[in-house]
Amino acid sequence: MKEVTATIITIGDELLIGQTIDTNSAFIGQELTKAGIWLKRRVAVGDVREEILDALAQQSRDNDIILVTGGLGPTADDITKPALCAYFGASLVVHEGALQNVTDIFNRLGKPVTDRNRRQAEVPDSCTVLPNQRGTAPGLWFEKDGVVYVAMPGVPHEMKGLLLDRVLPKIRERFTLPAIAHRTLLIAGKGESEIAEILENFEGSLPPSIKLAYLPAYGMVRLRLTGKGDEQSSLEAAVAARFDLLKGLVAEWMVADEDISLPEAVSRLLKSKGRTLATAESCTGGAIAQMFTARPGASALYNGGVVSYSNEAKQDLLNVSAATLASNGAVSEATVLEMARGARHALRTDYAVATSGIMGPDGGSPEKPVGTVWIAVAGAAEARAQKFSFRFDRARNIELTAHNALNFLRRFVLEMEGE
Amino acid sequence: MKEVTATIITIGDELLIGQTIDTNSAFIGQELTKAGIWLKRRVAVGDVREEILDALAQQSRDNDIILVTGGLGPTADDITKPALCAYFGASLVVHEGALQNVTDIFNRLGKPVTDRNRRQAEVPDSCTVLPNQRGTAPGLWFEKDGVVYVAMPGVPHEMKGLLLDRVLPKIRERFTLPAIAHRTLLIAGKGESEIAEILENFEGSLPPSIKLAYLPAYGMVRLRLTGKGDEQSSLEAAVAARFDLLKGLVAEWMVADEDISLPEAVSRLLKSKGRTLATAESCTGGAIAQMFTARPGASALYNGGVVSYSNEAKQDLLNVSAATLASNGAVSEATVLEMARGARHALRTDYAVATSGIMGPDGGSPEKPVGTVWIAVAGAAEARAQKFSFRFDRARNIELTAHNALNFLRRFVLEMEGE
Repeated sequence: MKEVTATIITIGDELLIGQTIDTNSAFIGQELTKAGIWLKRRVAVGDVREEILDALAQQSRDNDIILVTGGLGPTADDITKPALCAYFGASLVVHEGALQNVTDIFNRLGKPVTDRNRRQAEVPDSCTVLPNQRGTAPGLWFEKDGVVYVAMPGVPHEMKGLLLDRVLPKIRERFTLPAIAHRTLLIAGKGESEIAEILENFEGSLPPSIKLAYLPAYGMVRLRLTGKGDEQSSLEAAVAARFDLLKGLVAEWMVADEDISLPEAVSRLLKSKGRTLATAESCTGGAIAQMFTARPGASALYNGGVVSYSNEAKQDLLNVSAATLASNGAVSEATVLEMARGARHALRTDYAVATSGIMGPDGGSPEKPVGTVWIAVAGAAEARAQKFSFRFDRARNIELTAHNALNFLRRFVLEMEGE
Repeated sequence: MKEVTATIITIGDELLIGQTIDTNSAFIGQELTKAGIWLKRRVAVGDVREEILDALAQQSRDNDIILVTGGLGPTADDITKPALCAYFGASLVVHEGALQNVTDIFNRLGKPVTDRNRRQAEVPDSCTVLPNQRGTAPGLWFEKDGVVYVAMPGVPHEMKGLLLDRVLPKIRERFTLPAIAHRTLLIAGKGESEIAEILENFEGSLPPSIKLAYLPAYGMVRLRLTGKGDEQSSLEAAVAARFDLLKGLVAEWMVADEDISLPEAVSRLLKSKGRTLATAESCTGGAIAQMFTARPGASALYNGGVVSYSNEAKQDLLNVSAATLASNGAVSEATVLEMARGARHALRTDYAVATSGIMGPDGGSPEKPVGTVWIAVAGAAEARAQKFSFRFDRARNIELTAHNALNFLRRFVLEMEGE
């Protein structure tokens, strides 16, 4: 089967000058990979007509699909749409459906429709219009010399809706796609290069149709097997067999045998045991609470937490004793244990996790340098604390502390309650 | 002055398949722009030798600088370094300084140095080695036919250190760069297209050397003027004059007249008034706390907060009355006002901000659909609440709620205390 390949072309000065982080491309890459399309390249160009035309011409030489994002908003489309017209030999015309959509959106908002808004409904006359239910700029589907081109607005939730609802279904109709099988597992507590040593022979023994990828993520590693073939069920069986071998080799450090995040793994564990959780955060400042509450249905297991940034907050809300703080300091085993016990009590939960540390850049001392962190967990039977040392910048130290706290909690719950 | 142009080539399957979001390119883009280098393009290719070679050849045709990131880690460098050798006609040799660095790092970690680690110190013999103080893979600087190529590891904090400490200083020595001047302001409460209408004449009146950019960000817009010229002080004066005009046109919605985030603007405001803050978060689940605590020095103004996810937590920790919850529900004006007052009291602060809402996808009702949010602020003199409606997915609803809460707080503090 001939491989179907794609390139993403992202248009917009704001991406090149780094004012916007390109999250769209990661989303598109995931969806294309799941669909069995090989994303060969990603190219970002500025709001420059010649750059857009060159990128379209170059990328269409060795790709079946060109996905264009950005450059279609109300303040930016003066360059992209004329460039598309030039490339496809088309003229701009008003599309009645798109105009109705623009009018409906502004009527709902109770705002007047300006000329600039109305121009969002102008499209090149050679394209198929893909309705955008989340915004004013429609998707534009072109075909030229056997290559499919799709232009989508750059606003993430609009692009996502268009891609999933309109573009991918149309691509599946238009192309014959291969079978794809992925299996992913999550590892914590072992570095990428150590795991690579352990898996050297395993990786060497894989058939060419199955590849192993290392995907680092804050103190953890994701390992993914990807198989590509002609027939879905035999491919899945082949990948599953290798995945079982892989699981056996890394069992000691495996957090989950599917592609989920650590907060999701911990949430599932607590839900499966019918247990509730509270957080007491000093140095992570709400990061752990947010990891749980970002997930739908969090209220089933997460009662809440305290961000006890000041010592008074630790005393007033978590019942940490003034004597403990005075003799041990806020970043200490004794304090973090009292925080965990206090949160469990104050929020009436089965478990609590607590953090206290020095995230930097300031606040370190010779005894407690920046990166010193105490993490504690408390359950009905006991509480336990561990010291960690991180050596990165503030943002990364916070993320590492939060992730290590979740893994510390996970191991504690497993020990208390069994697998 | 001839413009100095650059392209970023990012190497790694993990970026194409969307398992990693490319934050490196945004950072590099910002730093290049600040330095007066025009980042023309960004290209991402997979771990495929031919793709890497093609990208190097193509991008060097019309650029002065090619920055390569990724593909140098312990499990990935089997493709990138040989490809660089092939491109530059070089051979891999062990670099003594880089080897010493690898050995030092593993000694500090108390871990053995494996062959795989040692290979990190192998470099193409035609390059200048740029020492990496944050990791094992050094930066590699090449020159060929007047074009500079720099390969850096993809780990963000390693790349950032190399770029700032080694690469940019060397680029400044090697090239004559233009004068650049940026001025940015932050707007809240007015949409991009409405602002664009207001600024149409202003934008049309700008000289060709000064450009206006719209940079959307969660319910806010950043406006940036960028000037490029030969002489720094006259350029800065010209941009400053236009910036004053711009400020006058958008004064009503301006949050800050510099390139800072909303959390930073609010933190500065509170610090300038010598005021302290507490948070009481239900639907934002710690997102607001995290916005403050992510910033160094947060403890000067932020005492802490409560993530009151359950009704019991609202009662026990924030003193919300059972009667209020029973008759109004958790998502109501009465509840969110009690939350704000309760947090201010419990954390002994001057101000408190509170959120309660339905973030989705579940939990909505005909009276209170998904996206319904109540935000309250409390000060010594009074408390005030406002209802908001958002219509996005859970993650975006949380971000919008957090940002609108900060802006609501900012306006309240300004009203209470004056500018």
